[in-house]
Amino acid sequence: MNPVDDLIEFLRFQSVSADRAYRAHVIECANWLEARFQKMGLSAHRFSTPGNPVVVACNERKAGRKTLLIYGHYDVQPPDPLDLWQSPPFEPVVKEGKIFGRGSTDNKGQILAHILGIESALAENHDLPLNLIVLVEGEEEIGSPNLESFLRENKHVLQADVVAVSDTGMVAPGVPTFTYGLRGILCFEIRLRGPAMDLHSGIFGGSVANPATELSRILAKLHDDDGRIAIKGFYDKVLPVEDWERKLWSALPYTERNWLETTGSPVLAGEKGFSFLERVWARPTAEVNGLAGGYQGEGSKTIIPGTAMAKISFRLVPRQDPFELKTSITDFLKQRCPKSVEMEIISQHEGKPYLVKPDSEFGNAAQEALRRTFDKPIAFIREGGSIPITQSFKEILGIDTLLLGLALPDAKVHSPNENFPIENLHAGIRLNRELLNQISQL
Amino acid sequence: MNPVDDLIEFLRFQSVSADRAYRAHVIECANWLEARFQKMGLSAHRFSTPGNPVVVACNERKAGRKTLLIYGHYDVQPPDPLDLWQSPPFEPVVKEGKIFGRGSTDNKGQILAHILGIESALAENHDLPLNLIVLVEGEEEIGSPNLESFLRENKHVLQADVVAVSDTGMVAPGVPTFTYGLRGILCFEIRLRGPAMDLHSGIFGGSVANPATELSRILAKLHDDDGRIAIKGFYDKVLPVEDWERKLWSALPYTERNWLETTGSPVLAGEKGFSFLERVWARPTAEVNGLAGGYQGEGSKTIIPGTAMAKISFRLVPRQDPFELKTSITDFLKQRCPKSVEMEIISQHEGKPYLVKPDSEFGNAAQEALRRTFDKPIAFIREGGSIPITQSFKEILGIDTLLLGLALPDAKVHSPNENFPIENLHAGIRLNRELLNQISQL
Repeated sequence: MNPVDDLIEFLRFQSVSADRAYRAHVIECANWLEARFQKMGLSAHRFSTPGNPVVVACNERKAGRKTLLIYGHYDVQPPDPLDLWQSPPFEPVVKEGKIFGRGSTDNKGQILAHILGIESALAENHDLPLNLIVLVEGEEEIGSPNLESFLRENKHVLQADVVAVSDTGMVAPGVPTFTYGLRGILCFEIRLRGPAMDLHSGIFGGSVANPATELSRILAKLHDDDGRIAIKGFYDKVLPVEDWERKLWSALPYTERNWLETTGSPVLAGEKGFSFLERVWARPTAEVNGLAGGYQGEGSKTIIPGTAMAKISFRLVPRQDPFELKTSITDFLKQRCPKSVEMEIISQHEGKPYLVKPDSEFGNAAQEALRRTFDKPIAFIREGGSIPITQSFKEILGIDTLLLGLALPDAKVHSPNENFPIENLHAGIRLNRELLNQISQL
Repeated sequence: MNPVDDLIEFLRFQSVSADRAYRAHVIECANWLEARFQKMGLSAHRFSTPGNPVVVACNERKAGRKTLLIYGHYDVQPPDPLDLWQSPPFEPVVKEGKIFGRGSTDNKGQILAHILGIESALAENHDLPLNLIVLVEGEEEIGSPNLESFLRENKHVLQADVVAVSDTGMVAPGVPTFTYGLRGILCFEIRLRGPAMDLHSGIFGGSVANPATELSRILAKLHDDDGRIAIKGFYDKVLPVEDWERKLWSALPYTERNWLETTGSPVLAGEKGFSFLERVWARPTAEVNGLAGGYQGEGSKTIIPGTAMAKISFRLVPRQDPFELKTSITDFLKQRCPKSVEMEIISQHEGKPYLVKPDSEFGNAAQEALRRTFDKPIAFIREGGSIPITQSFKEILGIDTLLLGLALPDAKVHSPNENFPIENLHAGIRLNRELLNQISQL
């Protein structure tokens, strides 16, 4: 089958993990994957979890060969808002060299490139040059709640030398990109309670604290006037950007101008003393993700709200420990809460930052595979997002992750009109074959 | 009809003025009032305005009699948050001697007491002892944007000797209360715009300003650490509280303890150096009435919101000028807005503060009516709320306003479970008849 037709078939499954209503489609998609692996000659199995199934495929494990674990996910983000799609999200179409559909880049197109690379190697040589395990999960878009325990329970089966993941970005079309760092994450919800109910701001205003005002005053203290996070000890373990990184990054095709265009912000902003790429890739942040309190409707309602709420999240950088910082952040917030309101802090989820040396043994093999596939100089980047599972591979299986992404900046991942260039699908197939070869030669 | 049934019928109309979605209910309510007045023998008419209708009723104007203008409003506050109501806001129920429903105290119960007092006097004597005009508007809760021009256009028809309004409080059940001062008001909506859309907080976090964070930082600057408003010149014209007022107020049945019980706040709070009554009645305030931005649903969504919004209002005290302060406040906010976000300030509505001497000719007549109705010493108070229209009556019609309120401290005005004691409805009917008599004898 033609790779594009194969991807179109994969994309038709409405495997949305965030909404249980799609559950039947998720199962169908996992079944399809299992059968797909079996058809190409791998032994494959669909494992149940408390959530969505994990599909694992492998060849015969032979002594004296390297073992590569390839990780990806078959679940996708919800397709909303539907009315902004130019073609239906689960009826893939090819237009101007790109496949449009939910999941086309994130992650079906990328994991399928791995699968088709393996298939072509198998078809040619009736065997692979290494031991291979492919793990495709169905809950990445909701934070992989069951994957860590799956890794622990199946630790021996999954034992490998290195992991390869294609779920990160390419800096530009045709530019081989090696992602060697990711940020961690730490999310909270803060709730403030003042008066027992919304109060008339005339009858009571001046006598009691306003939770929306107090919440603003607390959130305002998160940063100092230089945009630095004002929590004591927050930067203590932050690993500084090294000179070789600055040098590599300065060669990347990112400018303030195109960053402004992409974000639509009036100007760029953030922590003083760092370039915008350093701020996004190598400096931690504190963001208010959501804010609510009192009257939000049309016109005015003169009340003192009974409660106010903020959702906040921190992106962490290498050496920062989310579990340690959880305590500092909670203490910081509680200490700044006046007695006139009550504060509740709900800790939501966290993930550690990730950093590998690009020139490790496996890193070099991956670089060689990228070079041979794209025939261009490699872009070495970190990314501001979080893939907490990389840290689980490190802690549970004791191995590093190679992040070899194929997502373009305008792939519209998580947004309407998500797309994946056919060129990247083919490049991904070649990249995977090269990777198998390079790793087998170590 | 029984007064309670009458009030229940009045309360069923969802006459919310803040939200245009309720427009049909507002009109129905105005029609009902017009018919109600006509039924009791007054000549009544519903006047259109650019907003909601004004209903005016009067008896035959005869020379040689005093003319009393009674003012009230048939519009109500939005019922949100709906889930905190113990019975639906527009399906009134009677429980333990009180009627529960949106508008029961503010202002339908109180204006209906006037109407029923007039009806009973008419039923008994087939005439009233004075010329009467009743004006009931439908936009008080949104700052009466069309009433001032209505007063100007109908100045001759509305010419009277004094205005009576029952839209203020009683210090405790059964205690006749004479309100001689009110605060003014000034409302704004602040909108901040950052990136062109909600952005992924990993991919972009650190490179652009977060409008929710910037909004918090701006709102946090409204007050200093002593709870004083930090806007330059804000307190310049504030009239200090006089000794006779402090003396009268100290005799009132308000304690920190019962104020805490009423509000349900953890502790009392506000501007340093003033008692809680002084803070509410004679000191200005700045309150955040509403706050919104980003993701407010369950769990977390790691975005940088594209926009954030706050509704804020200021209560002003005698001698402060809302028109002057509008400029200072707008300047203050704009100066504190960083270039990384765009600020839009929507000026909503404003009203001047009010202060009269309690012992004028009409003041004395009102005091006598209060004494006869309740048979107890009168409490003289100011209030923290705003009835900007009092100032318009003074400026356009040249007359003072008698504020003879029937709202109890636990009436939950503007809050869920708003209620009005049946006892107060009957007292209000008696008070109105006494007031007609006392004024007619001047």
